[in-house]
Amino acid sequence: MPLPHHVRLVEVGPRDGLQNERHPISVTDRVRLVNDLTEAGVSHIETGSFVSPKWVPQMADSAAVFAGIMHSPGVRYTALVPNLQGLQAAIGAGVTEVAVFAAASEGFSQRNINCSISESLQRFAPVMAAAERQDIRVRGYISCVLGCPYDGAVAPSQVASIAAELIAMGCYEVSLGDTIGVGVASATSRLIDRVAAQVPPGQLAGHFHDTYGQALSNIYAALLEGVSVFDSSVAGLGGCPYAPGASGNVASEDVLYMLQGMGIDTGVDLQRLVAAGQRICDVLGRPNGSKVARALLAHEQE
Amino acid sequence: MPLPHHVRLVEVGPRDGLQNERHPISVTDRVRLVNDLTEAGVSHIETGSFVSPKWVPQMADSAAVFAGIMHSPGVRYTALVPNLQGLQAAIGAGVTEVAVFAAASEGFSQRNINCSISESLQRFAPVMAAAERQDIRVRGYISCVLGCPYDGAVAPSQVASIAAELIAMGCYEVSLGDTIGVGVASATSRLIDRVAAQVPPGQLAGHFHDTYGQALSNIYAALLEGVSVFDSSVAGLGGCPYAPGASGNVASEDVLYMLQGMGIDTGVDLQRLVAAGQRICDVLGRPNGSKVARALLAHEQE
Repeated sequence: MPLPHHVRLVEVGPRDGLQNERHPISVTDRVRLVNDLTEAGVSHIETGSFVSPKWVPQMADSAAVFAGIMHSPGVRYTALVPNLQGLQAAIGAGVTEVAVFAAASEGFSQRNINCSISESLQRFAPVMAAAERQDIRVRGYISCVLGCPYDGAVAPSQVASIAAELIAMGCYEVSLGDTIGVGVASATSRLIDRVAAQVPPGQLAGHFHDTYGQALSNIYAALLEGVSVFDSSVAGLGGCPYAPGASGNVASEDVLYMLQGMGIDTGVDLQRLVAAGQRICDVLGRPNGSKVARALLAHEQE
Repeated sequence: MPLPHHVRLVEVGPRDGLQNERHPISVTDRVRLVNDLTEAGVSHIETGSFVSPKWVPQMADSAAVFAGIMHSPGVRYTALVPNLQGLQAAIGAGVTEVAVFAAASEGFSQRNINCSISESLQRFAPVMAAAERQDIRVRGYISCVLGCPYDGAVAPSQVASIAAELIAMGCYEVSLGDTIGVGVASATSRLIDRVAAQVPPGQLAGHFHDTYGQALSNIYAALLEGVSVFDSSVAGLGGCPYAPGASGNVASEDVLYMLQGMGIDTGVDLQRLVAAGQRICDVLGRPNGSKVARALLAHEQE
């Protein structure tokens, strides 16, 4: 399969990234990050989540973030919601697209959301129905698609079934997450090939973590299988909650560099993206997790 | 093309890696590194170089390193040589395999070795002749195969011609180096495809730098083109001389993790390789450049 001409980058740094950072961050800085990403040309930004602040204190005040950001035409500012209450809070904050999340392994589902995979899908039913009534688009996440920290190996057929179910329930797209970053390119290729038997690649996204440095090779494998939407986190924000000090979400700058080199259009400006990432790293007092950013910033300092 | 069953990893940390580290390192520690790598199961180790210590002070005393290391049966301990004098010094130190190096761009050839590409190949002629007389195997390196810091883009046909010439002169294998790490997977694929028209993939090796995080995706692309030998540097030793602070050689641990995940045999033990890399990082007082090493060591500390 030839490489796609266009890729949509889904920036998850303001949500998936920041929620895994140790240091809390102000609404002002969260707003600034989203605005910087908008100005860099990112067209899809996961901006916050409507989850109990008891569970995810970093995402408290997401309503204030949505109220504070610029809303650039054509840019999708989305929110993660765990249930109907979260959906209503998101809608109240003016959100027009949300994401729901399931796990591909029973062990992760039980420990992360306290219910079986099947129960988690049942819980989405009223969320999907309410979203449809109110014209809210819903994206689905599946975590642990290439391995689980509790159960180990995960069968591609299991991922395919859950993806198909999410699409059947009304998700317009399913993002396949290698939550612990253990997958390699050949496994990604096999996974997408299997899932594509039930859900067309045009409705799939790849969400790769760079814990073991495999994210870009996995993205390349997914591109070769016809996937053209990828989640990433500016400056590699987030890290890995299962191995403190290790990398988490793949850095958006590194993905963009690869896509640009392949002549694939994304609409995103690399220099501006690097600047946005470095700014939030300065706020957090953390090193920049993007190799591209480090190399480009090192060149600038010469 | 199916993935290969076996890959030979050529460990370049003790030479290409250490020569680009700021801090000098003792013969004792260089010997220890090579021995650690041997015990990890690495079968091809670039152990030192016989270049003027005026130019590369980090590689002075390479003869003492060769004298000090264990010589495990079946393991190739090789040396880089720039000319006949270097070859004779290497042979005097008991070396049985050497490497010579050319550039794929005129700009890099002029600035790095002070002569044109054509002149550099002419200089190899007496080296190759002497090596053949003394039954010394010669490996060829070509640098800047995917881009040059001075000339920019490099034509795949130019790389193919130089590779073919090195093979014709007697090199048993040519290692294609993305010296500044600017290549992406689709470019690697095109390059190997073009070079393979003149040199079979079985005589090619990939030498990728991770400056922009692209190395593993480039290796995956090369594997798909039939290449089954890759150069790498334990713990990502070396860094990038063109962007201080940025990454250089791809980390051996990261390559090995990917190959293991693909079920490809290398003979190398990951845990021992990680330990060897962390030990030399402790000696150098530098952070570990391997994401796999950082993730595995973070898990150990839990």
